[in-house]
Amino acid sequence: MSKNINTASARAFEPEFVEKLKDIFEQRILFNQVLGLKIDQLGAEEVTGHIDMRRELIGHFAHQRLHGGVISATLDAMGGLAVMAAIGARHLDEPPAQRLLRFSKLGTIDLRVDYLRPGIGERFGMRAQVMRLGSRVASTRMEFLDADGKLLSTGAAAYIVS
Amino acid sequence: MSKNINTASARAFEPEFVEKLKDIFEQRILFNQVLGLKIDQLGAEEVTGHIDMRRELIGHFAHQRLHGGVISATLDAMGGLAVMAAIGARHLDEPPAQRLLRFSKLGTIDLRVDYLRPGIGERFGMRAQVMRLGSRVASTRMEFLDADGKLLSTGAAAYIVS
Amino acid sequence: MSKNINTASARAFEPEFVEKLKDIFEQRILFNQVLGLKIDQLGAEEVTGHIDMRRELIGHFAHQRLHGGVISATLDAMGGLAVMAAIGARHLDEPPAQRLLRFSKLGTIDLRVDYLRPGIGERFGMRAQVMRLGSRVASTRMEFLDADGKLLSTGAAAYIVS
Amino acid sequence: MSKNINTASARAFEPEFVEKLKDIFEQRILFNQVLGLKIDQLGAEEVTGHIDMRRELIGHFAHQRLHGGVISATLDAMGGLAVMAAIGARHLDEPPAQRLLRFSKLGTIDLRVDYLRPGIGERFGMRAQVMRLGSRVASTRMEFLDADGKLLSTGAAAYIVS
Repeated sequence: MSKNINTASARAFEPEFVEKLKDIFEQRILFNQVLGLKIDQLGAEEVTGHIDMRRELIGHFAHQRLHGGVISATLDAMGGLAVMAAIGARHLDEPPAQRLLRFSKLGTIDLRVDYLRPGIGERFGMRAQVMRLGSRVASTRMEFLDADGKLLSTGAAAYIVS
Repeated sequence: MSKNINTASARAFEPEFVEKLKDIFEQRILFNQVLGLKIDQLGAEEVTGHIDMRRELIGHFAHQRLHGGVISATLDAMGGLAVMAAIGARHLDEPPAQRLLRFSKLGTIDLRVDYLRPGIGERFGMRAQVMRLGSRVASTRMEFLDADGKLLSTGAAAYIVS
Repeated sequence: MSKNINTASARAFEPEFVEKLKDIFEQRILFNQVLGLKIDQLGAEEVTGHIDMRRELIGHFAHQRLHGGVISATLDAMGGLAVMAAIGARHLDEPPAQRLLRFSKLGTIDLRVDYLRPGIGERFGMRAQVMRLGSRVASTRMEFLDADGKLLSTGAAAYIVS
Repeated sequence: MSKNINTASARAFEPEFVEKLKDIFEQRILFNQVLGLKIDQLGAEEVTGHIDMRRELIGHFAHQRLHGGVISATLDAMGGLAVMAAIGARHLDEPPAQRLLRFSKLGTIDLRVDYLRPGIGERFGMRAQVMRLGSRVASTRMEFLDADGKLLSTGAAAYIVS
């Protein structure tokens, strides 16, 4: 599928911005801690992350499958992170702390998740991409993959950004 | 909005069926335990439940708001429960244990959640309704409410029922 | 399902506003003419309309069924109309012509349609309701019914309003 | 974004199959004629098509924009076509006429469309991909592009296949 986004970021994020964004995302958003969400890469056009399978995340007692809600929750979170990275890249002139304040204004408008294959495995990867960043609304696409890169679920979401 | 569903169940579920379904839903689906999901009513056309606010469910550190993923996860789970109740009502001739086996065949095809208002409060209620139960696919609508019955989020989902 | 919206409009729309909105919606949005979309009721909290079956709207040559795209197109249009009516009701202090200008700023962010039953019949009704009207985003729910009021499809959409 | 699908079709479709599928899709599904839908490529993993702008397809009188319903209708149709091609590729052992009968059993379960940018231009392209083809349900992703390949809308849909 086409991308319509320049994948080469003009400039990389400062370590301070990355560190603080990781702290907010992985620690201070408490439910992300429950999910075990970890950021892997933080680019202006794509962010990636992962979660590890744990007993608490099981949705189907008989099959040791990941709960669908774990998938929808991580895809929503990753879509929001992608929007935050895109906003961060657009405002590189602002000091990191000021840029991060924009995170608290971000809200999910709506979310769609397509469950393609059961979530079985030890580790799962997520990828999110901003399809369009407007002044008021951002649209994203997300993917949930197993450790071999096989696509398990896809998602789409809209976020309010101002 | 219209309902197009006869809200009077022909017959109530047996206590054994209700008890076992509650055990599966509230205990054995481990992530539902993390969410704190509790079933309130189990009808052939509508199911209701609730969750209590807890620190781990916070999504927005600054505002003490529920994480959007908690909402999507509970709405997905409640939609599935509504389908299970509708299937259970259709097969009242089967022994409860056999009917419950059908639960393990249920899978979410896709889910949409619309986030209308921030999830702030001590307790939240959920409601799910089966819009159509086919031989292979079921469609549901769900609502996420605050303690005063104010609508915070709505959802729609499709399930494979085989 | 709950409504959380006061269904009694404070005041009715002026005939001039209704007439001009009908003209825009039924005539000047040319594809709505192709669909044969007609407004039946225009309230601040709910709008209703209908379309008549025509040969060009067929999607399934073998079964004389309505094309799914006719359903998605009418539900999108009706959701937008519901938002327009809600905005119109919020700005009753403005002259009708000025209020109608707001229509040209309305845009669909995203749309979901659930196809429950095949679209067979001579006439179909639509209903749309604004679930939340914010300063930037509005969310709606829509229904597509047959002549007997049987629910054939449901929809949900988000619109940008400013 | 990842594809997880082998893009090299094992074998091409017979001219008879392609011709008849085009006839059904472009002519016999009457509303597709209204939309002016044309198939460009028909592969087991991806199908492409286009429509030309016409006055009747306008949704916004002031801006000469394509009606959102034209986009949702074409994306739904293209997703269904992609599923049909995927089914056709899976049953290459069947005579073309028999394979085409499977088309009449296909139904859309639900559809999501994200409107990213206004539909302005003389010609628009569409692309649809099957993300998963199961024995009962297929999931697709679709794209709606302008003549320069710029992404205007994205979609996702689920179809019942048996």
